[in-house]
Amino acid sequence: MENIFPPNSWTWSLGIVFMTGIPTRKVQCSELTTKTNAMLLLRHCQGVTRVGLLKTQRLLNSVATPSVTGCVGSLCARWGSSHGGQESGSYKRSHVPNWRHALAGLLAGTGAVLAYGLHSQAERAATTMVQPIDPPTSMPIFTQDDVTKHRSIEEGVWVTYKGSVYDITEFVSMHPGGDKILLAAGGALEPFWALYAVHSQEHVLEILSEYKVGELSAEDRRKQQTVKSSDPYSTDPVRHPALHVNSLKPFNAEPPAEILSDNYITPSAIFFKRNHLPVPQVDPKAYQLHVEGLPGAEPLVLSLEELKTRFPKHTVTATLQCAGNRRSEMNKVKPVKGLNWGIAAISNATWSGAKLKDVLLAAGYRPELAQQACHVQFEGLDRDATGTTYGASIPLHKAVSDEGDVLLAYEMNGEDLPADHGYPVRVVVPGTVGARNVKWLGKIIVSEEESSSHWQQNDYKGFSPATDWDTVDFKSAPAIQELPIQSAITQPAEGATLDRRAEEVTVKGYAWSGGGREVVRVDVSLDGGQTWKVAQLQGGEKPQPGRAWAWKLWELTAPLPPATQELEIVCKAVDNSYNMQPDTVAPIWNLRGVLSNAWHRVKVTIREDEEE
Amino acid sequence: MENIFPPNSWTWSLGIVFMTGIPTRKVQCSELTTKTNAMLLLRHCQGVTRVGLLKTQRLLNSVATPSVTGCVGSLCARWGSSHGGQESGSYKRSHVPNWRHALAGLLAGTGAVLAYGLHSQAERAATTMVQPIDPPTSMPIFTQDDVTKHRSIEEGVWVTYKGSVYDITEFVSMHPGGDKILLAAGGALEPFWALYAVHSQEHVLEILSEYKVGELSAEDRRKQQTVKSSDPYSTDPVRHPALHVNSLKPFNAEPPAEILSDNYITPSAIFFKRNHLPVPQVDPKAYQLHVEGLPGAEPLVLSLEELKTRFPKHTVTATLQCAGNRRSEMNKVKPVKGLNWGIAAISNATWSGAKLKDVLLAAGYRPELAQQACHVQFEGLDRDATGTTYGASIPLHKAVSDEGDVLLAYEMNGEDLPADHGYPVRVVVPGTVGARNVKWLGKIIVSEEESSSHWQQNDYKGFSPATDWDTVDFKSAPAIQELPIQSAITQPAEGATLDRRAEEVTVKGYAWSGGGREVVRVDVSLDGGQTWKVAQLQGGEKPQPGRAWAWKLWELTAPLPPATQELEIVCKAVDNSYNMQPDTVAPIWNLRGVLSNAWHRVKVTIREDEEE
Repeated sequence: MENIFPPNSWTWSLGIVFMTGIPTRKVQCSELTTKTNAMLLLRHCQGVTRVGLLKTQRLLNSVATPSVTGCVGSLCARWGSSHGGQESGSYKRSHVPNWRHALAGLLAGTGAVLAYGLHSQAERAATTMVQPIDPPTSMPIFTQDDVTKHRSIEEGVWVTYKGSVYDITEFVSMHPGGDKILLAAGGALEPFWALYAVHSQEHVLEILSEYKVGELSAEDRRKQQTVKSSDPYSTDPVRHPALHVNSLKPFNAEPPAEILSDNYITPSAIFFKRNHLPVPQVDPKAYQLHVEGLPGAEPLVLSLEELKTRFPKHTVTATLQCAGNRRSEMNKVKPVKGLNWGIAAISNATWSGAKLKDVLLAAGYRPELAQQACHVQFEGLDRDATGTTYGASIPLHKAVSDEGDVLLAYEMNGEDLPADHGYPVRVVVPGTVGARNVKWLGKIIVSEEESSSHWQQNDYKGFSPATDWDTVDFKSAPAIQELPIQSAITQPAEGATLDRRAEEVTVKGYAWSGGGREVVRVDVSLDGGQTWKVAQLQGGEKPQPGRAWAWKLWELTAPLPPATQELEIVCKAVDNSYNMQPDTVAPIWNLRGVLSNAWHRVKVTIREDEEE
Repeated sequence: MENIFPPNSWTWSLGIVFMTGIPTRKVQCSELTTKTNAMLLLRHCQGVTRVGLLKTQRLLNSVATPSVTGCVGSLCARWGSSHGGQESGSYKRSHVPNWRHALAGLLAGTGAVLAYGLHSQAERAATTMVQPIDPPTSMPIFTQDDVTKHRSIEEGVWVTYKGSVYDITEFVSMHPGGDKILLAAGGALEPFWALYAVHSQEHVLEILSEYKVGELSAEDRRKQQTVKSSDPYSTDPVRHPALHVNSLKPFNAEPPAEILSDNYITPSAIFFKRNHLPVPQVDPKAYQLHVEGLPGAEPLVLSLEELKTRFPKHTVTATLQCAGNRRSEMNKVKPVKGLNWGIAAISNATWSGAKLKDVLLAAGYRPELAQQACHVQFEGLDRDATGTTYGASIPLHKAVSDEGDVLLAYEMNGEDLPADHGYPVRVVVPGTVGARNVKWLGKIIVSEEESSSHWQQNDYKGFSPATDWDTVDFKSAPAIQELPIQSAITQPAEGATLDRRAEEVTVKGYAWSGGGREVVRVDVSLDGGQTWKVAQLQGGEKPQPGRAWAWKLWELTAPLPPATQELEIVCKAVDNSYNMQPDTVAPIWNLRGVLSNAWHRVKVTIREDEEE
């Protein structure tokens, strides 16, 4: 396809198709006779509805012919736009702000939630709906290594999509979703587009096609297939490339912080992964869940089908957090043992399954038993080389409480549990540390004792900063169950540069507390904690008392303080028991680096106006 | 009575009678023929069993005659003591440490709890068991004003007891209970002895008699009777003089911090008082409790007798804390509105009464109702001048939970509720801020709404430090219910001087968390938070999960750090949800000065050895 317009003109194309939502509308400009011409001219039309880049104004002046303005006028009339704007022409004023808002919404917060709803269809849609525009050509052949070298504006930003290679360097500054496009730099676009369904539309591929620079080598195309081996981790699933990997075997990874708060419901693909052992391969037809330890009752054995059909299905939106979330901050005080998690070993999902209470009742649990048994143990199907399974337990009163909402979940975000999240069945213990939400659940044991597993007895406990590996007595501290109040800043990132001309800064993040305690306030400081502003809490229905299992995302937009070129942005949250986060890390430092919930601090610089 | 021995000899008399427990044993020294002589000589015997004061050693050398050592030997044999000691004589070595431990125990921690068990009988016992030793004499007559002027070692320490005046200046340094004796300086002993039943023994009065200096004027004896007036507070009860009064009308007072941690169960007399209005006079025979708001059910009216007989009696040990406890620390950051509480607006008691749940069921509550009603409101019988009653509410799920343990209490520490604590019936909401534990309970209303009272809607809420009286929107914050993790140091006191020769320091305090969360650790720092040690937790049975309603007292003894003359002692507690206290006050400052739970800090100085 000829590229008769400069690449940056199609930013607006992207936008206008979002607004109409129906590509066929594009041919309604009466001057146009062929579909191809219509689309090309439409790009001119769309030029006048820009998303706010300075370049557009210049382009607008050069391409706004009478026929184009007529076209735009008719489109505007159909859209019935009513917002005002700052441009001089009336047709421009009428809908420019719409664009801006719609795009910002779609690509950032709520839009991404909406987008997620479509994400599972996204890849299929992209395959079936849109045929590759260009047939195989004699364009240059590149290897994956060639592509991988292009991961920055300086080196060029290359991506692949369905075997083609694209140099999108010039597009980066125009990407409506901002710098997030760089997450895909040097790699494939598919997994990112799967997260953001706005990309699964015909015009997006049109736009992309303009940047094509070559083809990926046949060998690299084939490399995407996983090769089996004797490695116990060889059957682990393929993961999303955006994840920041802390450990490959077992697989432990968190999403980039900057995309974490885009979604109230974290897409399963980027939900943080915390595996202690290889992911077990479970045949759903052969799956059995064993429930035992109930005095006077035979052990109960349930198939997956029985679990799904014998018990009512409940859905709970719950945030899970690893006990080691934000461990990296403790590591900076003094080295600790454990995966060096950033701030994103926390995610939020909807979980559906049977209530643990219902299954225990079916297995013979009676309330009188609460006098004898105090714990419910869980065993996973994941095993180490010696055959030892992962295990944990929770207090019985949580397991059988009507308000405890403990699930034996077989769905995550409306689909079967992904392999990394416990397929086919996991425990979801809302308000409780991730480690007790046992995945690949094989056995439930009602018991007088806590689980004897390493992870219950000698791990996932909190200690004084005075306790070291020579003096630690793991028996002296309780196993972590409910987690304390937590919050962190996801935007801007540590070290980011803000532009003084923007005049204000938007700070975003998450906040959550354990035990069903609702986050009621997040305070944000731009001066290291000297003064504070109250952030806006977002997302989620008002929870029932004591059952606030899901996080709150929050946002604050504040003027950039004058006369400073560095900001120390700080956040701290408060839950409805008015628990507050500690100010600093050192006094809560502990040898395992768990429970890291001091105020989160991010330093950024302000770039002052430069003389032009 | 002649005083043939120096006053400081009878310190040991006090001790020995504690140990034997049976005063008649004192005549078993065979050399003695009359009771009087026996007691006098016994004082010599007791001289060798001192409580550890340096003076004793000197005295011992001067009075240890053969007959005395024989006497002590026989006493030792009877006691069968087995502890070693540091003195040179074998009879001394055998029981000196016993003394020290017994006295320390009796006068400080568990001893005081034991003592409290007797305290209600104490005054009567002192009246009936022990007759005044001296009949009216021609000793000088003093007014209360004369006595009040003697409140320090410098001015002399005078006290009154049953109309007599005593100058106990010389005894202060020998008081086994330490400086606490100064709490009574310039006033009456009776209320203090009521707290510490060890004083209600014959020999204590004997000892006291030696310090008699005169009689209290007849007018001042009569002044103890309360005079009725038109003042709505004129019928308020007489309070314990040890209380630190924050406000007289309404009465708000806290115990001295140094005696707070003497008792796991706080004696009712010194349990902090937090009244919003005058104490109502309630006739128990006419008392009615109204329960209403249950759809489809007639209001239920219960007499006190019915409340006591129709429902099982439950007993719960629960700590209550005022939302404003430790407000004085916030006041130092920036002035706040409210009573300037120190660290002792918190106390622990046993409460007995009917379960609120049982009464609600009797009134027609059914679990289905939880869909419609969310709150249980309480109205007190205390009223302001306009007739408005005190009111508050709690969430329904707390009120009707089996594990919520909400009581309609008619007993405190095993006796009828005292007037200041809600006689005849109050609500006790374990784990919840004091303000919801409505006293002098008149009405219970099950409702869709929270209480509309000032105290629920426009008070007892937490805000950001950024919120001031111009910007506050009380609707924007939830009413405080569960309180966050809290701890404070009760000993040593701010500004205390430690003696370098003691080589170590003992730090004591309390720790508690709301919502039934158990305190699992208290960290103590002697260097302002740079390094930490773990304190020993004391007291209380292991609570059921989620039902840790009572505080934990704690203690740490640590070597005095060398090369410093000032210590900043800090404590911070952790609950079993691993909630931690914030480091500093300013970031949690709020305009009402509530929820003040930053690390507690106490500065003390070390007095170095002086050249002798």
